[in-house]
Amino acid sequence: MAKKKEKQQQSSAVRKRVPKKRATETAESMAARQRDISVSEFFAKNRHLLGFDNPRKALLNAIKEAVDNSLDACEEGGILPEVEVVVEDLGNDRFRIAIQDNGPGIVKRQIPNIFGKLLYGSKFHRLKMSRGQQGIGISAAGMYGMLTTGKAVHITSRTGKGRPAHHFQLQIDTKKNRPEVISDTEVEWDVEHGTLVSIELEGKHMRGKQSVDEYLRQTAIANPHVKIVYKEPGGETITYESSTDELPAHTKEIKPHPYGVELGVLQAMLKDTKARSVSGFLQSEFSRVTQRVAEEICTNAGLSPNAYASRIGRHDVEQLMEGIAKTKIMNPPTSCVAPVGEEQLVQGLASVVEAEFYASTTRPPAVYRGNPFIIEAALAYGGEGQEADAPARVLRIANRVPLLYQQGGCCAYQSVVQTKWRNYGLTQPRGALPVAPLTIVVHMASVWVPFTSESKEAIASYPEIEDQIVRALQECGRKLKIYLSRRKREAEAQRKRDYIETYIPHIGIGLRELLGFSEREEQKVVTKLTGLLERHRDG
Amino acid sequence: MAKKKEKQQQSSAVRKRVPKKRATETAESMAARQRDISVSEFFAKNRHLLGFDNPRKALLNAIKEAVDNSLDACEEGGILPEVEVVVEDLGNDRFRIAIQDNGPGIVKRQIPNIFGKLLYGSKFHRLKMSRGQQGIGISAAGMYGMLTTGKAVHITSRTGKGRPAHHFQLQIDTKKNRPEVISDTEVEWDVEHGTLVSIELEGKHMRGKQSVDEYLRQTAIANPHVKIVYKEPGGETITYESSTDELPAHTKEIKPHPYGVELGVLQAMLKDTKARSVSGFLQSEFSRVTQRVAEEICTNAGLSPNAYASRIGRHDVEQLMEGIAKTKIMNPPTSCVAPVGEEQLVQGLASVVEAEFYASTTRPPAVYRGNPFIIEAALAYGGEGQEADAPARVLRIANRVPLLYQQGGCCAYQSVVQTKWRNYGLTQPRGALPVAPLTIVVHMASVWVPFTSESKEAIASYPEIEDQIVRALQECGRKLKIYLSRRKREAEAQRKRDYIETYIPHIGIGLRELLGFSEREEQKVVTKLTGLLERHRDG
Repeated sequence: MAKKKEKQQQSSAVRKRVPKKRATETAESMAARQRDISVSEFFAKNRHLLGFDNPRKALLNAIKEAVDNSLDACEEGGILPEVEVVVEDLGNDRFRIAIQDNGPGIVKRQIPNIFGKLLYGSKFHRLKMSRGQQGIGISAAGMYGMLTTGKAVHITSRTGKGRPAHHFQLQIDTKKNRPEVISDTEVEWDVEHGTLVSIELEGKHMRGKQSVDEYLRQTAIANPHVKIVYKEPGGETITYESSTDELPAHTKEIKPHPYGVELGVLQAMLKDTKARSVSGFLQSEFSRVTQRVAEEICTNAGLSPNAYASRIGRHDVEQLMEGIAKTKIMNPPTSCVAPVGEEQLVQGLASVVEAEFYASTTRPPAVYRGNPFIIEAALAYGGEGQEADAPARVLRIANRVPLLYQQGGCCAYQSVVQTKWRNYGLTQPRGALPVAPLTIVVHMASVWVPFTSESKEAIASYPEIEDQIVRALQECGRKLKIYLSRRKREAEAQRKRDYIETYIPHIGIGLRELLGFSEREEQKVVTKLTGLLERHRDG
Repeated sequence: MAKKKEKQQQSSAVRKRVPKKRATETAESMAARQRDISVSEFFAKNRHLLGFDNPRKALLNAIKEAVDNSLDACEEGGILPEVEVVVEDLGNDRFRIAIQDNGPGIVKRQIPNIFGKLLYGSKFHRLKMSRGQQGIGISAAGMYGMLTTGKAVHITSRTGKGRPAHHFQLQIDTKKNRPEVISDTEVEWDVEHGTLVSIELEGKHMRGKQSVDEYLRQTAIANPHVKIVYKEPGGETITYESSTDELPAHTKEIKPHPYGVELGVLQAMLKDTKARSVSGFLQSEFSRVTQRVAEEICTNAGLSPNAYASRIGRHDVEQLMEGIAKTKIMNPPTSCVAPVGEEQLVQGLASVVEAEFYASTTRPPAVYRGNPFIIEAALAYGGEGQEADAPARVLRIANRVPLLYQQGGCCAYQSVVQTKWRNYGLTQPRGALPVAPLTIVVHMASVWVPFTSESKEAIASYPEIEDQIVRALQECGRKLKIYLSRRKREAEAQRKRDYIETYIPHIGIGLRELLGFSEREEQKVVTKLTGLLERHRDG
């Protein structure tokens, strides 16, 4: 495979060798096979994209998707979430999971689509911080259950006192990506409002690092307001009590920020807008665009604020883009993002890791591609539980949801590795985690978390996000350094003090014998010397 | 967040605390917002899933998708691929890429769907080794171009001599996921058959590890039969000549293997089949199922081979699954998978890495989830170019396509890390790559490569795949060990020989002086001693 550099002109290169035909496909025969692919077929075949590539992960993810939806629903309904997770072992790798919440419930007509159709939901078309965002998760869990056990998904939901509780049995028609209702009945249910979803699936139950227990435990860290009751396959019940009755700050939905918009998107928005003028369009479709800002953008774009939005041509759109870039526009409102909070994060962390020292920090809001986000970090150092000569443990959390897989591919992890922990008194092998009795928590809260795959296991690395994480870690690192050096100083001081306390008396005794001091004189000398040396030490 | 264990009965747990209402969403208000999400909208927003999350990656991926399609088309058409890649820098982060091939071309009516619609293609619904598999890539590249520059995609294609060349300008209607034809004309084109696609997009051109150059270079490693002409933004032309006129072994499309099928899938297949009897169904829908095997499966399932396929109930399907599991069925045919080959792999590797020692191995075919696959590995040790105290370099290739991103999340990389390189005389830090002047190539060839995301950057880790990769690496490792220890032995021998050659003569001289030897006698003694010691050394 010789590699040579040469000048050549277009297309000559691609006619040099005489094609060597052999009896195979033609454009026509290929065309005959071209066809549509349903999104369900796609995800059924690519289930690993959704985190269902092995039985253990599948069990965890199905539960995760259901719990995420429950917590979102409760919080949107302004209800303190109380979720019950039941896992039954049915033998030969089959499990039935049942997740019940006290949320606002789901209206009857929506139940089939929400649980029986991929890419259907309320969270995709808005900018708001929530756990779910794609409209795939729970339907995918049901689909996986159906594929592995042939069983339908069972849903029971009631939207309030006095209203009927509806029970559905659903399957997904993967060829058409739409729900197949097996049964639809009204049932007796002793729950005022809420939803219960139950899925039978092929799975594997294990404890440890990537287990259901671990996921629920970490969920509790990031959600002190949630109560979770977990009934294990063993039959034992674990209860995570909530540590606060305060719901997380209510987050608002926001409009996109001009800095994040792309030319093609802007073009489409202009086509669809109801606004008459460009200025009106900018004010109504974007956040942080006042009339003044809108006019400034137009001026910078060399367009009249009153130009008809619908009549803007491609070239004008480019100018508009430049106009936006040139105009100083306030960062998007951050009322749409709610951090866990420095205290709560340490609280949560302390509840799982007993350490000597904790530090945490919540960064000011930042923006990537026009999406506001907040990074929080916390760390726990030392303590019995933590191995001193092992790499630090990293807990990654996105919109209050713990991420248990794909650590290597995650921006949060990479940022931890990038951070120069040596500056903070820790040892760190080249391109690796610091080696210390250390647990690190990174939380990203955003209206749109860019996951590297639908299975939502890792955060994609945008420079803005990496930057914020590293800064957060540096802040924690500095606090840690102060603690470590104080501890070192104190140890040093202690050593000196011990030294003094050990030897001075002997000097005293020596002097008494040599100079025939009295006990009192000896004491005086000892005290003087001690004081002298102490002063000397402190200086 | 106290954690306590206790027994509790269902649902009582979720009514303990009195819900604290606040003016927010209700089931109804939420229902009002529920709606469909188009797959284009989905991927437009989640472009990082497709590998378009930053300008540099976007440029590379757009080219990658186009080249992959070109190579697939040529090979299916039995044509030795000659591909020309042109990248023009249009200033302020805009590029125009043009990829032209000498493939069989695309019939007119298919052009809009292939380039203007996501999840449309010929490769998804079949089991056959090919580079593309999802029917997303090239349309996604066009969509990204449209989003970032507002420009349409240009396609020119001709299916053969004497036929017209068609030129299309396309955009994607993301809200509906369907092509918008801007223009459709017949044009003059001095190419007999082939396709030229040109996309204008926001990008960043850089050299180095994850560059277009590197991608094309590695493509050449895995595709010795391909000729690539690359016109850089600089205007320089790099040509990768093909090193063989042999097309890769023609791979056949296969039917699914019974071991890979899942209950839900089997259920659906039974519903759709044209076969009358269960036995007929098994023989016609699966590979490696002869009449004998079909009957054995039925017997093991306790079903009559003549039972009506369409009348099989859910319970029978479970039995059928057990029947399949109980029956010994031959592995799927491997004619559907074509390895690069041990020699070619070393050849390709040698063309980019000048090393002292090369080793390669092609594993026998294996199966994961019923999909046949072949793992190949190669390594290059030592040589000027390779840093001795840096971690080894890993080249990951899937169906002849190099993977440049997400190394950490890739099964191939993880398998390299898992392999105990110390056994083969290399140093390897805990949980890290071996530290040596080493380049490692891993190639997975399969009818279906399980990527961790649509951007096809990393291979998902299925145990069967990991196992094969580790074995392949171990085989290479053993070869390396033999080389290394021979080299060590030789060095040792040399040291001894030097020693002998240095001192014996002096002994000779000494003896002559002491015992008054003649030159001849001295020579004799020296030769005798030397021989003696040589023998001693060899023993």
